[in-house]
Amino acid sequence: MCVATASRRVKFWGWGYEDEQRSAAEVQEAAAGIRQHLGFAPADAEAPVELDAIELPAPRLEPPAALAHICSSEPYERVSHAQGKGYRDVVRAFRGRVDNPPDVVARPRDEPEVEAVLEWCADAGAAAIPYGGGTSVVGGVEPRIDEGSYAGAVSIDLHALNRVLEVDPTSRAARIQAGAPGPALEDQLRPHGLTLRHFPQSFELSTLGGWIATRAGGHFATRLTHVDDLVESVRAITPSGEWASRRLPGSGAGPSPDRFLLGSEGILGVITEAWMRLQARPRWRTSASVLFETFAAGSEAVRELSQSGLEPSNCRLIDAAEAAVTGAAVDGRSLLVLGFESADHPLDAWMARALECCNAHGGEAPEGARHTGPGDERGRDSGSGAWRAAFLAAPYLRDTMVLAGVFTETFETAITWDRAGSFVEEVRETAEAALRDIAGAGTVTCRFTHVYPDGPAPYFTMLAPAVRGGELEQWDAVKAAASDAVIAAGGTITHHHAVGRDHRRWYDRQRPEAFARALRAAKAEVDPRAILNPGVLIDPARG
Amino acid sequence: MCVATASRRVKFWGWGYEDEQRSAAEVQEAAAGIRQHLGFAPADAEAPVELDAIELPAPRLEPPAALAHICSSEPYERVSHAQGKGYRDVVRAFRGRVDNPPDVVARPRDEPEVEAVLEWCADAGAAAIPYGGGTSVVGGVEPRIDEGSYAGAVSIDLHALNRVLEVDPTSRAARIQAGAPGPALEDQLRPHGLTLRHFPQSFELSTLGGWIATRAGGHFATRLTHVDDLVESVRAITPSGEWASRRLPGSGAGPSPDRFLLGSEGILGVITEAWMRLQARPRWRTSASVLFETFAAGSEAVRELSQSGLEPSNCRLIDAAEAAVTGAAVDGRSLLVLGFESADHPLDAWMARALECCNAHGGEAPEGARHTGPGDERGRDSGSGAWRAAFLAAPYLRDTMVLAGVFTETFETAITWDRAGSFVEEVRETAEAALRDIAGAGTVTCRFTHVYPDGPAPYFTMLAPAVRGGELEQWDAVKAAASDAVIAAGGTITHHHAVGRDHRRWYDRQRPEAFARALRAAKAEVDPRAILNPGVLIDPARG
Repeated sequence: MCVATASRRVKFWGWGYEDEQRSAAEVQEAAAGIRQHLGFAPADAEAPVELDAIELPAPRLEPPAALAHICSSEPYERVSHAQGKGYRDVVRAFRGRVDNPPDVVARPRDEPEVEAVLEWCADAGAAAIPYGGGTSVVGGVEPRIDEGSYAGAVSIDLHALNRVLEVDPTSRAARIQAGAPGPALEDQLRPHGLTLRHFPQSFELSTLGGWIATRAGGHFATRLTHVDDLVESVRAITPSGEWASRRLPGSGAGPSPDRFLLGSEGILGVITEAWMRLQARPRWRTSASVLFETFAAGSEAVRELSQSGLEPSNCRLIDAAEAAVTGAAVDGRSLLVLGFESADHPLDAWMARALECCNAHGGEAPEGARHTGPGDERGRDSGSGAWRAAFLAAPYLRDTMVLAGVFTETFETAITWDRAGSFVEEVRETAEAALRDIAGAGTVTCRFTHVYPDGPAPYFTMLAPAVRGGELEQWDAVKAAASDAVIAAGGTITHHHAVGRDHRRWYDRQRPEAFARALRAAKAEVDPRAILNPGVLIDPARG
Repeated sequence: MCVATASRRVKFWGWGYEDEQRSAAEVQEAAAGIRQHLGFAPADAEAPVELDAIELPAPRLEPPAALAHICSSEPYERVSHAQGKGYRDVVRAFRGRVDNPPDVVARPRDEPEVEAVLEWCADAGAAAIPYGGGTSVVGGVEPRIDEGSYAGAVSIDLHALNRVLEVDPTSRAARIQAGAPGPALEDQLRPHGLTLRHFPQSFELSTLGGWIATRAGGHFATRLTHVDDLVESVRAITPSGEWASRRLPGSGAGPSPDRFLLGSEGILGVITEAWMRLQARPRWRTSASVLFETFAAGSEAVRELSQSGLEPSNCRLIDAAEAAVTGAAVDGRSLLVLGFESADHPLDAWMARALECCNAHGGEAPEGARHTGPGDERGRDSGSGAWRAAFLAAPYLRDTMVLAGVFTETFETAITWDRAGSFVEEVRETAEAALRDIAGAGTVTCRFTHVYPDGPAPYFTMLAPAVRGGELEQWDAVKAAASDAVIAAGGTITHHHAVGRDHRRWYDRQRPEAFARALRAAKAEVDPRAILNPGVLIDPARG
């Protein structure tokens, strides 16, 4: 079986692997082009610091001898586990500002070692931070802990648990270890003709356990939107024992134990493996690019599609400004990327009816903008495959933007259809005003990434000149303005990016107070020393 | 708006309304026919006792003056709220054996009255049993409480909260009070051209709040199987305050608060209302009856259908013995009731491909067994409409069977496809052996009520001569044998009937131990006096 290549290292400060980082000259050239494309004044690109130049405080913890062989306090390990991959993470890390390095990075290779690490943390009074791909954009893996309460922090990196352990082709399911990143997982499923088909933007680096812990959003724009629906059962190690559900296609026996782990963001236990529902590889695919005069018209078409029962796999509505930024020539029109896929049947009837819906709202699908044919697992040969290639490249581009002094951040939410139109406008205008107040320029664009019969999941992209040296204050102000607007207008603080530490203030206003108390009590029961990922979702009471 | 008709009373001992009960002569005649049809020896039908003949212990509680006008300790109220509608409930109640009558039945008319009743219960040390339609078949509403721990029991009947409060046609959602029974709820949605389309077998009597509390299974055989997927947000009153989630089409903000209430069976709070996702009324329907030589062949076809992405609304595979009992002339073959419905598009392509799948496994859909045409909300004009009429009539027939001395009980579960074939055989044979050991005769039949890509939900029906006067011991032995077999073979103790008190022993072996501890801690936090539905799901620690 293919497993992660140990010889490549991920960049300590940004997206992807070290060997993928462009040279300083290349970045300089790209930076000029990007700023010009965005309409910003030229600026020199900065260079990321060298790892050697970063000074770290001495580790406050030393692992017991029995765990020394799976633990490291090397600078690369500590720095690369010190933050996630959000804008404020990259902006700090490329300048060598490492606010909260873990003292130790542990890499358990099996469940007993996970248990042993948790025991050590509990004994030592250390915070234990489960770590998958480290791709959190909400402060989910940063050991931002209360120094008075914890003796230090241990990042528990699950990458050694990266195998597909069993495949059940009859039920189309597989038992997969939590540390498996997207490509390794798909590589191991491919020989069986099966695929998880969960392709979040972080797919290359993020892991199954991270997806489950954060309720990640994936490939499908309708129906199987979150990883939640793909989970058949989960195993986790809590500080007070294992948490293992039965493998079942459906159950009505009490509140779902799996749904309580889904979204728990590492505060209840370390997810070690899961039985996941798989798909057969698609044999038929059809896609179309549909243009609408206005976002509102496209939105009405998408609402009708979402309520039609047709269940397109792709149904992403992109506003005119965002379509222009990403290079689609759409003459000020909004773009709907529409696609169906099936391993079972041709999709002519589905697409024909979907295009009827679009046409009824003025949508035009130009000749050449429709692709029908055999599908491969990543859809590389189709229109939506091109879309996905750009989608997966975005984090790489983001790194270059950060070096070029571009403030680039996204946020996402969900809202019911009755409020969606005014919601998007209010939130967009509020965020754009915040950008311009601070940096004198900036745009906020929107797309619907996922759609439900009762509402869309709007995803906003913010671009502005960065306030060099003041990026964090800029981020704080813009993030607060945007999040306040989302919460005030009835949205959720996150549809699929998770809560982490960065969304806490707004999450606390959103979730039912009684549920927060219930969750805190549940956590205190399974994690009595409150070692697991403190500060994420709730503030645990330390025993 | 139409609300429940106050002038009709439900039978205190069995299914439906008092004015629907057949006369003694009619029951006698039907009973003879039923026993003959089942191949059992003739026996006289018994008659249910009159309410006046039932002696009840004096109520141990008296409501405070402020609540007296919504409380009753009248015999009809106490007896009719003393148990659910399972076999062991009906068998006791028709003979006037009322083991655990509530002391008081409270009928709050708004949330402040729910709060006031809960406060009174907490102050008085009384158990508080939320009560919707009273249709539990698992002991979910019976005040089977520890006398040493509670001063008495109050049944909180939610029927006064039976209104649709708001309809949002754009998002296709409605805010509905929890006490609304199926017909009242659909009557109020009909003028808007919308429908919840949640039709459990208990539809006529059961309520929205009950469905949510028990994760009821409804109309759709695939995709929207449980009520879970129809819930947009929930409000509940806990003994320590309200629990109210935001109205959202989707969210990834922490573990879902709604999914923690779904299946909570009244132990966390009294559900008072919910925003529910609705459907447009179907305009196209197509259905077929497909016959298979063996259940195994039908099962393979259904597996393929469940993994096809076609998502039939009806996909119920019935074994030969059950098809024969219910009067379908199928010559020893298994019957698949297959149907599609849509408010958006004709379904020819869907049904054509589904029948191809069936044919590939030897399925035959005779001429005359296919129906295509405009659909009405209950499908009365179609093949699956006839199926549903029989389905909804079953509980009435059950009452007559009980009087006729027929042991009749069902149980249901779910299992992954890889194990489904041997699972069904093992469980069926074990249950049938238990029936025959005790009563010398008996059959167990099986159908798949719901199917998922990774497995079916098998539903078993047991019929045997009742051991007159020993029905409860008979039930205990058969239930234990069947449930042991289900749990030992990897199934769930319930797919959609809930846990209640009757499934506790097996639920305790099924759920993750760490989750049980988390749930107990969460309950202790929101219900610190442990008044809510004690004994259901968990044994609360009394504070």
